[in-house]
Amino acid sequence: MKITCAKDQLNHAVQTVQKAVTAKAALPILSGIYISAQNNKLELQATDYEIGISCAIDAQIDIPGQIVLSCRYFQELVKKLPGETVEIASSAEDRTIKITAGTSQFNLLSLPAGEFPVLKPLFDKSAQENSLVIKDNLLRDLIKRTVFACATEESRPIFTGALLESTESDVRMVATNTHRLALKKSILETTNTNYNPLKIVIPSKVLNELARLLSSELPVDVNICWEKNRVAFRFENVYLESRIIEGQYPDYNRVIPPQFGTVAAINTALFMDAVERVSLMAKDGEYNVIKFQFNHDQVIITSNNPDVGKAYETVPVTTTGTEITIAFNAKYVTDILKNIGTPELHFSLNTPLSPASIKPVNDENYTYIITPVRTS
Amino acid sequence: MKITCAKDQLNHAVQTVQKAVTAKAALPILSGIYISAQNNKLELQATDYEIGISCAIDAQIDIPGQIVLSCRYFQELVKKLPGETVEIASSAEDRTIKITAGTSQFNLLSLPAGEFPVLKPLFDKSAQENSLVIKDNLLRDLIKRTVFACATEESRPIFTGALLESTESDVRMVATNTHRLALKKSILETTNTNYNPLKIVIPSKVLNELARLLSSELPVDVNICWEKNRVAFRFENVYLESRIIEGQYPDYNRVIPPQFGTVAAINTALFMDAVERVSLMAKDGEYNVIKFQFNHDQVIITSNNPDVGKAYETVPVTTTGTEITIAFNAKYVTDILKNIGTPELHFSLNTPLSPASIKPVNDENYTYIITPVRTS
Repeated sequence: MKITCAKDQLNHAVQTVQKAVTAKAALPILSGIYISAQNNKLELQATDYEIGISCAIDAQIDIPGQIVLSCRYFQELVKKLPGETVEIASSAEDRTIKITAGTSQFNLLSLPAGEFPVLKPLFDKSAQENSLVIKDNLLRDLIKRTVFACATEESRPIFTGALLESTESDVRMVATNTHRLALKKSILETTNTNYNPLKIVIPSKVLNELARLLSSELPVDVNICWEKNRVAFRFENVYLESRIIEGQYPDYNRVIPPQFGTVAAINTALFMDAVERVSLMAKDGEYNVIKFQFNHDQVIITSNNPDVGKAYETVPVTTTGTEITIAFNAKYVTDILKNIGTPELHFSLNTPLSPASIKPVNDENYTYIITPVRTS
Repeated sequence: MKITCAKDQLNHAVQTVQKAVTAKAALPILSGIYISAQNNKLELQATDYEIGISCAIDAQIDIPGQIVLSCRYFQELVKKLPGETVEIASSAEDRTIKITAGTSQFNLLSLPAGEFPVLKPLFDKSAQENSLVIKDNLLRDLIKRTVFACATEESRPIFTGALLESTESDVRMVATNTHRLALKKSILETTNTNYNPLKIVIPSKVLNELARLLSSELPVDVNICWEKNRVAFRFENVYLESRIIEGQYPDYNRVIPPQFGTVAAINTALFMDAVERVSLMAKDGEYNVIKFQFNHDQVIITSNNPDVGKAYETVPVTTTGTEITIAFNAKYVTDILKNIGTPELHFSLNTPLSPASIKPVNDENYTYIITPVRTS
């Protein structure tokens, strides 16, 4: 192999795919980045079998070929190389790869390219009945507003991922750890009738990496394609695939109360600041619990940690319906306040022991359900 | 106690003194911030016996008194309080302290103020023959350009601190881990003859905290005062004292070669980038060693890590004297390049096994000595 390419593009490609390299790779070959040169393209790949990413850039290919370089050293080096172009050439004598830029010359040991589990892109299959197109900013928004609600402990794997679901008119993402649930819908511009409905659960770790890569300045199309065990996303010069978490995702619609006896309209920023201060006195307490007393014109927020002290805050609200006192895990409240994205919210409740809802005002496409905590 | 003060000033004072609270305090009382109110001043203090810091701010004192609050909770709370003023009042009934700001009310448990080891400032003593005045920007510069050279392992405590020394005409700071040494002098504006010469070793941890606090926009005076076991610094509204590390500091002048057979003039930025890249291939190698071959018009920098690869870089230089090949610990070279502060430097050498010097061009007040590594 012998190629020349732009340093900035190579650096971008390395930074893109290196998110699929785990620090503690099970097999040595998975600690590497696979680099393939042919047809004026340099394609970089990395995978840990859960997530696989490839990124292709333009390059002058003098001799085509495939190599694998240690991700750790290659990415540090490419970041620091001088000048604007980089030359990469494999040596005929030994298994080193010569990397030249300006007056810098490096010979990196390579890993055996034949051992690398090269990605087999789903899009190359002729049958694409399982596919969907969505704008990258909409997909990023679906992820960012829900994925924080996933479970972090592995005891029930299905909840460590988020459900991605499509109907004829919208795409939805749902995440829950069984104590709280986030649901975000994105209405499709045109009704899609020519594909199969999508219903898969994707690991939260993969979704976080995907959201980070969906950062184009102008909206671009993301092609989504799936089969039984894996799902793939293609956008710009990036291909990302993920395993699908097996199992039955519960019917989230049953968790969402059809109506509420109390609805409080609250300023998001004031509420957020007050809840964060009150939670300071709850952090070490059992379950991080804080209490909310919804009166007609204010909500009184309190906490009491015998080892630290007490907090008492009031925030103006406009409450319709019954006054109610209820307790929540403070973190489950602040998590949604950080992601709600509107200056006003509706906090809707029924009884001190039934699920409540926090929603942006005037946005039916974002729902957050939170289970209260029983207090003495 | 009952006081009212400006929130921003209180926050600044808390952030200043909290650097003296260690995460794992040996005594529970040392996890607290001592707050004393009298004569229209609120003084905050913290200490871990190695470093003690106090900071005084203006306040309206309605009832004088002393309290101690948990640093962890108090500092988080003060940072997040709403509005512009804060009221702090001790309760007559229990040992809680009421903190009020806007509609926020907090009752923090207090620690027993009588147990706090209140600082006894050195400056309150009538005899001040052991004192010195220096501008804060000069002191900060002395620290920043030397303290990185201190030893980090505790096997020889004297080298975990830096020597602060004064003569009639200058103040110096010296730091070494026995493999490299940094010396920075600051010429005093006026000759000082009315005080005892200073020669003390201060823990590097304390010096780093001190440098962080010496951040005024316009230069201010720092009063330094010392006795047998401790040294104190007073500037603006801050008092900081430190224990002095006991023991004899070696004669650093004997380490500095009087002349050199080879002197290379090098561009700092080009040299720095090349050394950093070459050291990528040395990091896991034994001692992180890289080789420098000083020729008349270029220095060739190389490394060879059998597990990773090889690096080869050239940087233009103007060398006078004998050509020489020598090896150094890469970190000891990059450390000084980050701190040298001038676009050109002089790398001066004698033989492959004798100490070399790296200095800014045209600055006799900053010297860095580095011991080479023997290679096969």
